[in-house]
Formats: sequence, structure tokens, C-alpha cells
Amino acid sequence: MAKVCKINHVAIAVPDIDGALGFWRDGLGLEVHHVEEVPSQKAVVAFIPVGESEVELVKPTADDTGTAKFLAERGPGMHHLCLEVDDIDAMLVELKAKGVRLINETALELPGRKMAFIHPKAAGGVLVELYQLT
Amino acid sequence: MAKVCKINHVAIAVPDIDGALGFWRDGLGLEVHHVEEVPSQKAVVAFIPVGESEVELVKPTADDTGTAKFLAERGPGMHHLCLEVDDIDAMLVELKAKGVRLINETALELPGRKMAFIHPKAAGGVLVELYQLT
Repeated sequence: MAKVCKINHVAIAVPDIDGALGFWRDGLGLEVHHVEEVPSQKAVVAFIPVGESEVELVKPTADDTGTAKFLAERGPGMHHLCLEVDDIDAMLVELKAKGVRLINETALELPGRKMAFIHPKAAGGVLVELYQLT
Repeated sequence: MAKVCKINHVAIAVPDIDGALGFWRDGLGLEVHHVEEVPSQKAVVAFIPVGESEVELVKPTADDTGTAKFLAERGPGMHHLCLEVDDIDAMLVELKAKGVRLINETALELPGRKMAFIHPKAAGGVLVELYQLT
């Protein structure tokens, strides 16, 4: 059976990366690994390692993304929880067999990683991303 | 300078522990360490280890708690992010000196741990808990 290994990241929707860094970097003293425009997410993301996980600050660069809609409807805050798994394909098959509602029934493949989202209605209101390094 | 060590836990507000376990335990295959009534939080909490961190499912047992109000206003979802630090007292002094708005200016002491909350207005909408094992 596929296994959840760790929290890969907690994604936080922010309206402004610099403003958010004023707290996460300057306030808490966390080190920012890098800030990068991620075209596939239509967002600028600040990657901040915290132990074996990361906090990711996500600022949408287009209005038609999930993060932009979340910001418009709920304001800034935690957007999704990403769990790293050892076999995402097997996990998705198992979840589907259990009747868990998925946003992505097969994993999206990107260089070095595969990812898929579980529907928040299946996860008690939490948008859960599954992630596997490849 | 005090240091953030890791994500201690992500707390998820749920209306019903058994229903939530249907996803986190039965769906994802995570093992539940234990489920406990926590009188100081007026909540029942399911502790679910994920790597070096935990997912905590929090079901309020009274209407006058932050989690109960969160559930009533926003529905179930991620409620707060808890960061483990090596010296919570020093961290609170530093944050206060930097003008970061705190809910608890001094740490609450409980057996084996100290904890304090940072105001979500200081942390871009995220309720951040600081935590130190003692």
C-alpha cells in the first residue's frame, strides 16, 4: 500500500510576497530558499524550508487560478496541505477504489515530481495535494 | 536568536472526529497515535503523525472556543499552523521587539511544553502557534 511520508509543504495564499516575508523571514527568522515565478501555477512562490517541510508563500499572477479565487473569497491564509507519498500512482488508485473524490485522477507529471489534488469535499474542507519526487 | 526547528503540527477543525478519520486514517492510510479529550482546549483531538510533524484533527466540545467559532464561520478546514522553536521565551521577546502582534505575549506553560499564539493579522491571515517541548 502506498504510504504518506511527510508534510512536503503548507501553501499560504498571500497578496504580496514582500509583505509576507516581513513576517516569515524578518519576524520568525526563517531563511528563504528562493523566490520563483511558477508559470504552471500562474504564481510567484517563496520557498521557505522548515525542518523536513516547507512553507510556500503563493502570490497569484492571474485572476483565474484557485489561489486567486481563494484570496478574493476568503482573504490570505493557508490554502493547501501537501503530503509527500512514496507511490502517487498507487495512492490515487487506492483512493479512487475507496470512493475518495479526486480533482486529478491521474498524477500530473512535471520535471522531478508528480502531483495530484484530492477534492476538499473528500478531506473535510482541506485541499490536499499529493506529491512524489521522481 | 531563537530558531524555528520544524512544523510541529497542522491543526484541522472538524465537526466530527470519526468522519474526519474516514479520510485521514482509512483513506490515506495514516496511523492515528491517539484520540484524546483536551480540556484546556475544550476539544477532542486526534493526533496523527506525518513524518516529523503531526496532523491534528480538532473537534470543539464547547461553542466558545476559537475552533468552534472558526467552524461556524468558515466551515471545516486548516485552523492553525504550529511551529516548534528552540526557545519560545526568547522568540516572543524578539517578535515583540519587532512589533509583531501576539495573542500571548508570554508563553502558556503546560506539562512538557510551552505554547503561544501569534495574531493572524501579523502573519498574513495564518494563525501561527509557537511551541517548545520542555
